[in-house]
Amino acid sequence: MTSSPVSTPDDIATALPAFAEIEAAAKRLHGLAVRTPLLESPALNDRVGGRVLLKAETLQRTGSFKFRGAYNRISQIPDAARAAGVVAFSSGNHAQGVAAAAALLGLPATIIMPADAPAMKLANTRAYGAEVIPYERSSTSREALAVEIAERRGATIVRPFDDAGVIAGQGTCGLEIADQAAALDAQLDALLVCCGGGGLTAGCALAMAERSPNTAVYTVEPEGFDDTRRSLVGGERVSNTEGGKSFCDALLSPTPGHLTFAINQRHAAGGLAVSDAEVAEAMAYAYRTLKLVIEPGGAVALAAVLAGRIEARGKTIAVVLSGGNVDPQAYAEILARESDAA
Amino acid sequence: MTSSPVSTPDDIATALPAFAEIEAAAKRLHGLAVRTPLLESPALNDRVGGRVLLKAETLQRTGSFKFRGAYNRISQIPDAARAAGVVAFSSGNHAQGVAAAAALLGLPATIIMPADAPAMKLANTRAYGAEVIPYERSSTSREALAVEIAERRGATIVRPFDDAGVIAGQGTCGLEIADQAAALDAQLDALLVCCGGGGLTAGCALAMAERSPNTAVYTVEPEGFDDTRRSLVGGERVSNTEGGKSFCDALLSPTPGHLTFAINQRHAAGGLAVSDAEVAEAMAYAYRTLKLVIEPGGAVALAAVLAGRIEARGKTIAVVLSGGNVDPQAYAEILARESDAA
Repeated sequence: MTSSPVSTPDDIATALPAFAEIEAAAKRLHGLAVRTPLLESPALNDRVGGRVLLKAETLQRTGSFKFRGAYNRISQIPDAARAAGVVAFSSGNHAQGVAAAAALLGLPATIIMPADAPAMKLANTRAYGAEVIPYERSSTSREALAVEIAERRGATIVRPFDDAGVIAGQGTCGLEIADQAAALDAQLDALLVCCGGGGLTAGCALAMAERSPNTAVYTVEPEGFDDTRRSLVGGERVSNTEGGKSFCDALLSPTPGHLTFAINQRHAAGGLAVSDAEVAEAMAYAYRTLKLVIEPGGAVALAAVLAGRIEARGKTIAVVLSGGNVDPQAYAEILARESDAA
Repeated sequence: MTSSPVSTPDDIATALPAFAEIEAAAKRLHGLAVRTPLLESPALNDRVGGRVLLKAETLQRTGSFKFRGAYNRISQIPDAARAAGVVAFSSGNHAQGVAAAAALLGLPATIIMPADAPAMKLANTRAYGAEVIPYERSSTSREALAVEIAERRGATIVRPFDDAGVIAGQGTCGLEIADQAAALDAQLDALLVCCGGGGLTAGCALAMAERSPNTAVYTVEPEGFDDTRRSLVGGERVSNTEGGKSFCDALLSPTPGHLTFAINQRHAAGGLAVSDAEVAEAMAYAYRTLKLVIEPGGAVALAAVLAGRIEARGKTIAVVLSGGNVDPQAYAEILARESDAA
């Protein structure tokens, strides 16, 4: 039940999901995942001098894209293993996705979460019926803890990104973007994806390679946590320096996954990084102008466009808003700071 | 240029917009107004035991539906009258709609706004290039001031609701709801519309009467400002009692319009009213669960569903979220109060 993560080149090649698995995931998710809208704001277009299409995964079930991958993965657990349930480790959005998917499918779920995760993420995960085990970020290996619990119970670990079923599920987001852009007669020059471990990017990149091959897919990460960007530049997986700080709590994974990096290395055009100040400005812009609630980690791709980290003038760029689970007080503080600065 | 509002029965009958004028408005607005999404939230459906479809006019150009009516009306001003510009009076959303529409069409705009309107509404209206004239709610007749300015300049008054061109423009919102619901194979039992002077309701009711005649259209107003509800009950236009209080700044019109009431009397099923506390709860729910920013006046229809003012169990109900222009500090205070209460 506790399949190890793949790591050898042969293992990786064998485990990579094919495009057909994204299509299969879309069938499984039909009627359960929200087909989130691809939004367009005249004010945003005017500001950047291009056309920006916003994939609002903030409006997804559980408030982030993570439900897609979690449900796709859990729905494929063999009958004999279902009663023992699932175990996951997550900073909060994968936690909610796994908890909600397991509840829909009738499996018990245990989620290992940082004790300092946003209160909303902890509360929602419990509200979906999962058992939450808090851990201290500094002192505990969450993965080792998950493996220990899974082995003891015979439960299935649902990894947050380095899993073919999870990647294929996230890829349904990219499939929808390609379909929705085509319905608007929009030729996407680029797609910007918020990136932690790289699962959403990998899924979307696989989908775009098949459906919109001329679209350049970029990861966007917080400064200091741009392990995927640096790995893409260097051609091998590198880790973030320890001790970095960012308020993008959803994007603090230390290293790209084996599977996700193999896919992103092949299909992504490159990586971008944004500062926390740029993310805060994007969140304030989202509130004031877009009327959308976006969490820090969900706003990095929008921040990259607003801060000019990619040239948008005359271009058509799709941007994933990957999640909206942010405590109201934290949002209020960001808005208050931005007002002072304005 | 300063056509009086209609008031005699014959005038009203002559001035009522026909359904064809909504279709004509939709053509004028194509590519300029946002075709806002009709959103669905599994969490909200679960909570009410029915299917709720949310028409997110918060995502409209200028952050509210008002752009639709303003643009439709202003675009029909004869060439000879364009240089003298437009004058409007508004608590803030019509102000922004008129200012943005006039800017797109190249007409100067003067807007009379309450001095205590939300800061965001005042700032945005100015940012669209309009001249803003503040007035004191208690001491000045904003309509008399508008007439005086319009006569002096030869400018055209763009009334906030009692105008066939404005009503037809707002009706495009209803047209989209009918089309979008049909695309989802959803049979709408009811449509709930936030109601101030009744322009949005009248436009939507006209559209639904033609496109979805079995849908019951309800106005939703703040308690103490339910002049339309009481007028519908009594069969004639009545006014709100002076001195009432509500934080739904967009919905404080004292009396239904002549045209809007004539339409709503014929086509609306009835009126609902919600308390400020229910509106605050709806705004908190929108932030936490829907990830949408909704202003008080834009949240009354959602509040009616959440508070059980209409039975949603087993029904399919469309709800207009009419605007999202709310100062961050005001929103933060509502969220903080709701957190304390939770």
